[in-house]
Amino acid sequence: MTVTAMTTRPGLAELGLPSGQRARLYRLLYQHGLGNGTAIFLPYDQGLEHGPRDFFANPAASDPKYVIRLALEGGFNAIAIQIGLAEKFYWEYAGEIPLILKLNGKTDIPTSIDPLSPVNATVREAVRLGADAVGYTLYVGSPAQEHDFRQYLAIRDEARQLGMPLIVWSYPRGTAIDGKGGKDSFYAVDYAARTASELGADVVKVNFPHPEKQDGVPPAYQGEISLQHAISAVVRSANRTLLLVSGGERAGDEAMLEKARQSMEAGATGLIFGRNVWQREHEESLRFAGQLREILAKYPS
Amino acid sequence: MTVTAMTTRPGLAELGLPSGQRARLYRLLYQHGLGNGTAIFLPYDQGLEHGPRDFFANPAASDPKYVIRLALEGGFNAIAIQIGLAEKFYWEYAGEIPLILKLNGKTDIPTSIDPLSPVNATVREAVRLGADAVGYTLYVGSPAQEHDFRQYLAIRDEARQLGMPLIVWSYPRGTAIDGKGGKDSFYAVDYAARTASELGADVVKVNFPHPEKQDGVPPAYQGEISLQHAISAVVRSANRTLLLVSGGERAGDEAMLEKARQSMEAGATGLIFGRNVWQREHEESLRFAGQLREILAKYPS
Amino acid sequence: MTVTAMTTRPGLAELGLPSGQRARLYRLLYQHGLGNGTAIFLPYDQGLEHGPRDFFANPAASDPKYVIRLALEGGFNAIAIQIGLAEKFYWEYAGEIPLILKLNGKTDIPTSIDPLSPVNATVREAVRLGADAVGYTLYVGSPAQEHDFRQYLAIRDEARQLGMPLIVWSYPRGTAIDGKGGKDSFYAVDYAARTASELGADVVKVNFPHPEKQDGVPPAYQGEISLQHAISAVVRSANRTLLLVSGGERAGDEAMLEKARQSMEAGATGLIFGRNVWQREHEESLRFAGQLREILAKYPS
Amino acid sequence: MTVTAMTTRPGLAELGLPSGQRARLYRLLYQHGLGNGTAIFLPYDQGLEHGPRDFFANPAASDPKYVIRLALEGGFNAIAIQIGLAEKFYWEYAGEIPLILKLNGKTDIPTSIDPLSPVNATVREAVRLGADAVGYTLYVGSPAQEHDFRQYLAIRDEARQLGMPLIVWSYPRGTAIDGKGGKDSFYAVDYAARTASELGADVVKVNFPHPEKQDGVPPAYQGEISLQHAISAVVRSANRTLLLVSGGERAGDEAMLEKARQSMEAGATGLIFGRNVWQREHEESLRFAGQLREILAKYPS
Amino acid sequence: MTVTAMTTRPGLAELGLPSGQRARLYRLLYQHGLGNGTAIFLPYDQGLEHGPRDFFANPAASDPKYVIRLALEGGFNAIAIQIGLAEKFYWEYAGEIPLILKLNGKTDIPTSIDPLSPVNATVREAVRLGADAVGYTLYVGSPAQEHDFRQYLAIRDEARQLGMPLIVWSYPRGTAIDGKGGKDSFYAVDYAARTASELGADVVKVNFPHPEKQDGVPPAYQGEISLQHAISAVVRSANRTLLLVSGGERAGDEAMLEKARQSMEAGATGLIFGRNVWQREHEESLRFAGQLREILAKYPS
Repeated sequence: MTVTAMTTRPGLAELGLPSGQRARLYRLLYQHGLGNGTAIFLPYDQGLEHGPRDFFANPAASDPKYVIRLALEGGFNAIAIQIGLAEKFYWEYAGEIPLILKLNGKTDIPTSIDPLSPVNATVREAVRLGADAVGYTLYVGSPAQEHDFRQYLAIRDEARQLGMPLIVWSYPRGTAIDGKGGKDSFYAVDYAARTASELGADVVKVNFPHPEKQDGVPPAYQGEISLQHAISAVVRSANRTLLLVSGGERAGDEAMLEKARQSMEAGATGLIFGRNVWQREHEESLRFAGQLREILAKYPS
Repeated sequence: MTVTAMTTRPGLAELGLPSGQRARLYRLLYQHGLGNGTAIFLPYDQGLEHGPRDFFANPAASDPKYVIRLALEGGFNAIAIQIGLAEKFYWEYAGEIPLILKLNGKTDIPTSIDPLSPVNATVREAVRLGADAVGYTLYVGSPAQEHDFRQYLAIRDEARQLGMPLIVWSYPRGTAIDGKGGKDSFYAVDYAARTASELGADVVKVNFPHPEKQDGVPPAYQGEISLQHAISAVVRSANRTLLLVSGGERAGDEAMLEKARQSMEAGATGLIFGRNVWQREHEESLRFAGQLREILAKYPS
Repeated sequence: MTVTAMTTRPGLAELGLPSGQRARLYRLLYQHGLGNGTAIFLPYDQGLEHGPRDFFANPAASDPKYVIRLALEGGFNAIAIQIGLAEKFYWEYAGEIPLILKLNGKTDIPTSIDPLSPVNATVREAVRLGADAVGYTLYVGSPAQEHDFRQYLAIRDEARQLGMPLIVWSYPRGTAIDGKGGKDSFYAVDYAARTASELGADVVKVNFPHPEKQDGVPPAYQGEISLQHAISAVVRSANRTLLLVSGGERAGDEAMLEKARQSMEAGATGLIFGRNVWQREHEESLRFAGQLREILAKYPS
Repeated sequence: MTVTAMTTRPGLAELGLPSGQRARLYRLLYQHGLGNGTAIFLPYDQGLEHGPRDFFANPAASDPKYVIRLALEGGFNAIAIQIGLAEKFYWEYAGEIPLILKLNGKTDIPTSIDPLSPVNATVREAVRLGADAVGYTLYVGSPAQEHDFRQYLAIRDEARQLGMPLIVWSYPRGTAIDGKGGKDSFYAVDYAARTASELGADVVKVNFPHPEKQDGVPPAYQGEISLQHAISAVVRSANRTLLLVSGGERAGDEAMLEKARQSMEAGATGLIFGRNVWQREHEESLRFAGQLREILAKYPS
Repeated sequence: MTVTAMTTRPGLAELGLPSGQRARLYRLLYQHGLGNGTAIFLPYDQGLEHGPRDFFANPAASDPKYVIRLALEGGFNAIAIQIGLAEKFYWEYAGEIPLILKLNGKTDIPTSIDPLSPVNATVREAVRLGADAVGYTLYVGSPAQEHDFRQYLAIRDEARQLGMPLIVWSYPRGTAIDGKGGKDSFYAVDYAARTASELGADVVKVNFPHPEKQDGVPPAYQGEISLQHAISAVVRSANRTLLLVSGGERAGDEAMLEKARQSMEAGATGLIFGRNVWQREHEESLRFAGQLREILAKYPS
């Protein structure tokens, strides 16, 4: 396969955005965090997705108030939480740091051969709470995609009508994906980025692609492919959908920072790091967040 | 695992509550029962959940009028019943004791490998009947969680719009839970408390956790863990969602009272005891209720 | 098991009824039939439930006009039919005899391992046709109970809003019931009566319980239990939901009359007999109906 | 079994019809065709139900314009077609011949173990197009009857509100029927006629019953039964629902005419013949239609 | 089988079109492209249907802006894209080239034994974006046809109410089709064309039929059948539904051009070619588009 030159990060003016969406995206990208058009978001829905065990490494992180304050102190652009925490904890910090209301989610208790993330809040509620964006998890390639697309349409349509930016957690999942290189193969992540773009996401969150995972992937994704090449292709597949790279499970700092650099170099708009940030002591969290900010600072737009 | 110090019970002022929810919760916690911010509720939906056999130990309890009077005489904060009994029996006692309208329920006749508790009444009806809260059973971890979350969303959304507090019976259930320590393992109860909190419950009802049930639970929940440690962690996982501990099947009085003490010590807001109260003679019921009240009296807020 | 003394039949004034429901129930119980607070209803939905073969014993009964006239001549309190017959035949007798519009039903052609009776008419249509009650078949214990409860809620809610009494055909059914004593065990019928009461039926129709069917029933329902004891317990489980005993398949007259006596003695409000009435010659039908009326005449309220 | 005397065909005045339905039925039965209260309808939905192969015997019949003109020339009372053909072809002949808009249909490509005919147009559209009736295929006895009844209710309710007569294609189908004598046994057709009547059809279309198909039918339908006896019983089961006999697959003319005579003798209102009419040359079609008209002319009402 | 003479392409005046649909179809057929009543559309939804791998042959085609410009430069009548690309890229070219908003789509990751293409945008959104038609993929013969027809009805009904032409991608699919000659047998394509016509499509897109694929097709489709005969029959089955022939996977130019000629000769309205156009270098794309236009120029209406 051949791939052409680096993609430049799309600017807000190119996106054909209606007024409400543009106002909120501008606030997220230019009035918080570094204010330079990049973004780093703090996701905190793991209490629902994995349960309290995710907080055992740093018990303080079990307290939503602690995590919201961490987002403020660490200079994050926004925090992404579910309705329950948003209602009970965000009111104390409303306006100080933007809110991304995550609209769907599920526990990881039952098996996930045909996963679907059910909606538990509405865009209207995001407006009521003063949120600047909503988040939706789309399980790309799930046998349940029919239900997922339908559910997604209702959210996207309501978001458009209320001028609310929509961030899609675009996650390849399900038995078919398991047989085609797995959920973070270059093939799967590339397809997930494009799917979010085709379906009208304003922003897409993807995992960093692993081009070396090639078992069962289509021929076009086989052969020697560099990490930089892969993430650049993924950003291009997202075209005018702003792209965020996810931190995923906690891993080594140097590897994470390198992926952050490669992502920004490829044209990503920013990062969305949760467990890598708050699954450590408070000072360590701030130090690591500072390192991520240093990277973003090199990519103003 | 390490766990930090005791959680203090959250006060109403911390919860970011809209006016209607706050008014009704204030009525439940400060104008009935002991009036000291604690609560003891009398649930009476076993006629639907298990059938009339639950009343054979004390046939008088088959009569809803008897049980409502028992709640009044025993100084309970409220009674929780289904729509049919609420319509036909509550009108005689309306205003004297608060009503929690339980909105869903099911018989235990068919097997429950993927349980879901279907809704049989609406929040609007709770308002019509003069209820001060609604109850919803969420089967955390059920393979049917997608349907459950969707059904729950409709109830929560209607409750918010009508200013009605929502109490979630947060019950781990289903085949996956059976393979991960069972429905009352510390892991399962802890996850259930957090799930209710993430999904926006105002109050959550959980079973007392059994930290010794460790077959198949995640590593973080393995090892020597005390009962006090477990219930404290569960209260913390619920964070600003007020927590009630359930009595469950009838058991020895001393064990029940000890669990009640440990729960209140951990920061629980109160208790919800049904069969342990009314599956005995009238005087015995009142004596036991008095013992529970003595415990609650030590935890004013 | 021990069971306490006879239940007295509940009066309308005890039921907390809104105006519309009370007016229509008063008409059914005090302005038709014997006018003494008892009732005998004529159900005629077997053409849908079993097909025309039910009419072969008395071909005249195939004609809905014949059966409506039989109800009039036999002094029944009302006739219960489906929408199609109600629209085409009831208009000729509107006002002369009350109409119970049966809102759901099904053919018995496909197997019924998880039965559900789909709705084919609305409460609004019952109002339009001048009906005094609506009927709904609930298959208690069916694996499809989730769908059934949801469908039932919509009907009950509409009935409440239109002041229309709701009569529940509360039928234990499905594979789980088959393994727990069967559809007319005391356990099953007792649970069915309570379920209708918990879910807000105004009137419940049950089969006469068979306490001798004990294979697989819970321990509480095992042992020597008399028929009178069983039917009394069932009436008590229904509490303030008025109870009707069903005739079921045609059987010997003496046995039927004895069951009718025991039911009324236990506090039932009345009877609902179809095939036992119209599956015989016209004069025989009237004679048998007269015998039932004689029994009811002994239980005024 | 014993069956009583011939049924007389019901007149419009007996049916308790609201104004809109009566006006449209009057137009269909007394202002088109022979104008004598009988009817012969031309159904033309085989292009959807079986595909274009049904037109290979007479390729001209592939053209909807040809078939509509044939209905006009042959003196039919109406043509029954799907929305697509109604929109594109009926406008040229609007008013000249009545339109029955068939509201549901399906291809015969997938297997039909639990058939359901999905809706593809609405009653509102029938009104917009100037139709005088709507058609609905009900698969009596299908394991999918729950979905079918629900879908049917929505159509019937909308039809009632718009004063539109409803013609039910009442077809026994599915695995259970296959094991009980098959789709055109006397048992199945008789049950189908009654089901349509119970569910509120204004007109029902059935296949001619085959009393000799007795494998697996209930005992009441076993034994020596004549064709005339069978069709008379079916008409009686439909009671005040007007009955049409379907031609079905193309067969010998004499046999078809004999069945037509027997049906009218039994009290049927008319015939609905498609393939037997248009699967032959133009002149032959008109000649056969003329023979059918001669029969109908003998049964004025 | 015998087939009669060539069908003439239907003109707009014959179609009984309401004003809005006629205005938009006139714009598509007479004010863009050649303006002679023919059409060539550029579909670009493969990024969703197959993923980015479809762009690897010509990486420039990964950029929606490149493809929209190609449609403009190549003299296409319209471009057919999904909502996400329409919102972010079409605004720059709005009015210059018509937009067909494709309303449903899916990834090809999970298996497709009972395929259904879920809706991800609404007709209302098509109006908001200034589209001149909407597209819907119908999987004819899929075991999921019940859901598909229901979903389709909602779209068609909304399209009619908003005066928006509806183009149906009529694709035979699913296990039953696989056993009856496959998705591009003459039998399957012919049935698909007729199905779209019966269900009210304004325009239908089909694949070119392969009459030599006869394994399992009905007898009527067996024997020696020429390509010209087959495509002519398909156009006739579509009757007054305008027919477009699809290019499908990229193939040899001469074969494609020959099929285009045969289709136009048979009475097709035009072509819809995507991968055959943009899966090559820019100049080559324009050259091939020019060859297609030369063919269309010979069939003005």
